[in-house]
Amino acid sequence: MKSAKDFLFSRESRKADTVLNVAGIPIGGRDIVVAAGPCAVESEGQLLETARAVRRAGAAVLRGGAYTPRSSPYSFQVLEEKGMEILKTVKEKTGMPVVTEIMSIEDAKRYAGMVDIMQVGARNAQNFSLLKCLGALGAPVFLKNGIGNTTEEWLMASEYILSGGNRNVILCYRGIRTIETGTRFAMDVGAIASVKRRSHLPVAADPSHAAGNRNYVAALAFAAVAAGADMLEIEVHPDPENALSDREQQLDFGEFGELMHGLDAVAKALGRRIYRLGD
Amino acid sequence: MKSAKDFLFSRESRKADTVLNVAGIPIGGRDIVVAAGPCAVESEGQLLETARAVRRAGAAVLRGGAYTPRSSPYSFQVLEEKGMEILKTVKEKTGMPVVTEIMSIEDAKRYAGMVDIMQVGARNAQNFSLLKCLGALGAPVFLKNGIGNTTEEWLMASEYILSGGNRNVILCYRGIRTIETGTRFAMDVGAIASVKRRSHLPVAADPSHAAGNRNYVAALAFAAVAAGADMLEIEVHPDPENALSDREQQLDFGEFGELMHGLDAVAKALGRRIYRLGD
Amino acid sequence: MKSAKDFLFSRESRKADTVLNVAGIPIGGRDIVVAAGPCAVESEGQLLETARAVRRAGAAVLRGGAYTPRSSPYSFQVLEEKGMEILKTVKEKTGMPVVTEIMSIEDAKRYAGMVDIMQVGARNAQNFSLLKCLGALGAPVFLKNGIGNTTEEWLMASEYILSGGNRNVILCYRGIRTIETGTRFAMDVGAIASVKRRSHLPVAADPSHAAGNRNYVAALAFAAVAAGADMLEIEVHPDPENALSDREQQLDFGEFGELMHGLDAVAKALGRRIYRLGD
Amino acid sequence: MKSAKDFLFSRESRKADTVLNVAGIPIGGRDIVVAAGPCAVESEGQLLETARAVRRAGAAVLRGGAYTPRSSPYSFQVLEEKGMEILKTVKEKTGMPVVTEIMSIEDAKRYAGMVDIMQVGARNAQNFSLLKCLGALGAPVFLKNGIGNTTEEWLMASEYILSGGNRNVILCYRGIRTIETGTRFAMDVGAIASVKRRSHLPVAADPSHAAGNRNYVAALAFAAVAAGADMLEIEVHPDPENALSDREQQLDFGEFGELMHGLDAVAKALGRRIYRLGD
Repeated sequence: MKSAKDFLFSRESRKADTVLNVAGIPIGGRDIVVAAGPCAVESEGQLLETARAVRRAGAAVLRGGAYTPRSSPYSFQVLEEKGMEILKTVKEKTGMPVVTEIMSIEDAKRYAGMVDIMQVGARNAQNFSLLKCLGALGAPVFLKNGIGNTTEEWLMASEYILSGGNRNVILCYRGIRTIETGTRFAMDVGAIASVKRRSHLPVAADPSHAAGNRNYVAALAFAAVAAGADMLEIEVHPDPENALSDREQQLDFGEFGELMHGLDAVAKALGRRIYRLGD
Repeated sequence: MKSAKDFLFSRESRKADTVLNVAGIPIGGRDIVVAAGPCAVESEGQLLETARAVRRAGAAVLRGGAYTPRSSPYSFQVLEEKGMEILKTVKEKTGMPVVTEIMSIEDAKRYAGMVDIMQVGARNAQNFSLLKCLGALGAPVFLKNGIGNTTEEWLMASEYILSGGNRNVILCYRGIRTIETGTRFAMDVGAIASVKRRSHLPVAADPSHAAGNRNYVAALAFAAVAAGADMLEIEVHPDPENALSDREQQLDFGEFGELMHGLDAVAKALGRRIYRLGD
Repeated sequence: MKSAKDFLFSRESRKADTVLNVAGIPIGGRDIVVAAGPCAVESEGQLLETARAVRRAGAAVLRGGAYTPRSSPYSFQVLEEKGMEILKTVKEKTGMPVVTEIMSIEDAKRYAGMVDIMQVGARNAQNFSLLKCLGALGAPVFLKNGIGNTTEEWLMASEYILSGGNRNVILCYRGIRTIETGTRFAMDVGAIASVKRRSHLPVAADPSHAAGNRNYVAALAFAAVAAGADMLEIEVHPDPENALSDREQQLDFGEFGELMHGLDAVAKALGRRIYRLGD
Repeated sequence: MKSAKDFLFSRESRKADTVLNVAGIPIGGRDIVVAAGPCAVESEGQLLETARAVRRAGAAVLRGGAYTPRSSPYSFQVLEEKGMEILKTVKEKTGMPVVTEIMSIEDAKRYAGMVDIMQVGARNAQNFSLLKCLGALGAPVFLKNGIGNTTEEWLMASEYILSGGNRNVILCYRGIRTIETGTRFAMDVGAIASVKRRSHLPVAADPSHAAGNRNYVAALAFAAVAAGADMLEIEVHPDPENALSDREQQLDFGEFGELMHGLDAVAKALGRRIYRLGD
């Protein structure tokens, strides 16, 4: 049995916070980084418009789903390959680095060079074959927790990547499933606080998927940062009511602008600030 | 079946936030109120020393358990009647109003005139006989959620008090039990955000019992306020290592002072401030 | 800290199964005892008709709610005092002992002589004031688990009764709340198996409240017995569609008869049999 | 939005129980099929000895892990390719069909012709890329539920396989994670009963992983069958104390023999019987 100091994710193996450099953006340091964009890439126009709006409001990274899991095989299926091309185009046009989900080893290998941060979603949080592959690839990984996993299992999942030689791991807390029905998932800020203490890795939070309701996204974003999160990932869409997925929880540009305004103040209260491109 | 507008706790029955007046302290308004003190009343000296320290640091209400549930009948059993007398004495000496748990109808009737806020703990969160009694008594009630209850059930529990004619209800979120083992209970800030939106009642949070670990109490306190909490209840002890209960989670005076310092900044960032006695 | 052998509920303090004698019925031995009857006592006619039907089908104990908790204060409120009188009358007319819920210390004292088994519901599973009172009273107690409690906490709740001098405790598993939405509560048979092994007390199960759906009650009843339960409590109503509460889960007489028929076979397969009055 | 009758897993799309034919064994009909064998394939000797013992006791299918997920990358790593060869050898020597886990698309394609039933473990229960691949391959799939998934999500995961054209799906319930700590996972028999009713697919249960403790495996196996399960998967090892994994929960040959003896009686009580090779 290994002890805590033998695990690469552990504070006992490395005391100082890990600060990753992703396309020049420091993640895990004093600055808080916001990734924003639509749930799903729907068209170049939609993504470009959103990218420009969220960058103006203070987001440094663009998110958007090209491959993304749907509970039912009959739900709207995303653009996949075509979506990836749109992400690439918009990345070039705006200069924003991109975080997007990959769902298989095949896709991880295919897109490792193009995507700045490869997201592993909750459903693949213990897909160890995929995690081992990402450990070998070396590109930055945005590792969500499984909705039925403990923080211990989540950290151990990161060890699969780290032990493969890839130290570029960001842990993203997206909430867990509990008995509560008033929100989609529970945003347990104790998980953020405890993982920050037990690991030196950067910790992000995903208030959009936890809330499942746009009315709560800002409150959850503020709370995640107050609990110690280094990064946020937030769903923003030009017209949430007509989005092809996640209509309930995507923010419009105005709502996102207000959130960022409030976040500036919260970050400052904690001795931090929001990282903006061009800083 | 009643609709939302028929429930007294509901925003649909009353749009404006309820602001209670407890011994001159406004709870549920712009100001954030902090209650602090030991898990259990151990002696007059212990309570008085703590009361003075937490008041100095910015707490407006004194907490302390005279009657308090223990999972095992063989755990340290609290002072009960004697503890209530100590609370009364310290309240008179410091001018701090007192919040303390009552566990039965008999005690509720007996102490209604002496205790400023009567706390209903998680284990009695659906003890409807007790809630009805509190509805009739009229004294302010600090109603915790059950660790296995949804926010819907918690609000419905408050309706038992409200519908009895007692509108002096503060909802206190103390976390729920989930699959996570890194903290004692999950502090799901989505519950705070959603209850604030669905109800006009003041919402408090109890980061100490959720965390179960003093290292996380400040982070959880900040997060609860960032998510919208109007009040906090925090366990503070002159010498946590030698406390008779909850040794892991009680803060010492220095830790509590730091927490309050940070809380001032977080409250300000949200356009609020900490209420201090004498304000 | 006490060790396992110091707890009165523990197998380590008493190896042999406890077999209670309730009005001449052995509970916890080789025979399986079935309690059946309506969720709520609605009228003497309803209760008497049901008592005769369930006795004919093999139930030995009559259940029926006179006092019973409702999540909302505006739900149908049960007959209370009047319901208790009906229970008494029907008990006399049929010779069936009665199990019914009591919700307060006041009621426990009042009805201790009249009710054969006093049920403590899930919402009062950690109402320690009530449990202590029942420890002093001595009448048989049917202790349900709280929906958010571990089996460890449930056993410790029983210790509050046992340590008061009352050894007449039946543990009744009514399921816990989990992430699953296809049934009302999870009937985790591992809890039954593990509590039977860790404690010498009789263990009952409540498939009706766990299922929340009459279609699953028989399957859950069979499974509970297969996992080791000594007793079952099942909701039966002359006309479930028009019941004043729990319409979804109460069985009609025909369904209950079929269940008992199947149960006879399952019990026999396990080397047990159903206890019938007059045996 | 599709309605229930449009889902291939649904009883509304197909009323009669699906009975699969796996190497001549009917799964999902009147007979109950037992798969048994070690957690991990450790050597040819270990697997062959176990296969002969479990077959003698009444198991019709051999289980054994060649590829199998470990929470930590530093745990004993299984034999993988070599383990698959051993499975093949022992299958030929004993005539028992084999169920074993596959963890990636690559392995699914590689072993589709050799393995009789391909198991998808809890951690890949929503690995939709893998499920789609299995839908195209056509080989029988043993689909476990995710520990944080609802039965609705589990059924929807099966739809990914079914809608790809592969109707050979067995749903295997392995328990969910809950608040309970007395067992590893909760064996909620309501999930088995409700899935049997909502779907025509065969339903299996995995009492070994739910219990996490050999003392409870038989009770949980009986309960699963009593609730309606058509198949069981049970871990058996020649020398559990010295097994390389899952020491706590693997049965020895004697314990497995007793379990099968009891199971014969339970099955008979329910009008079913255990399927034996050569029947």
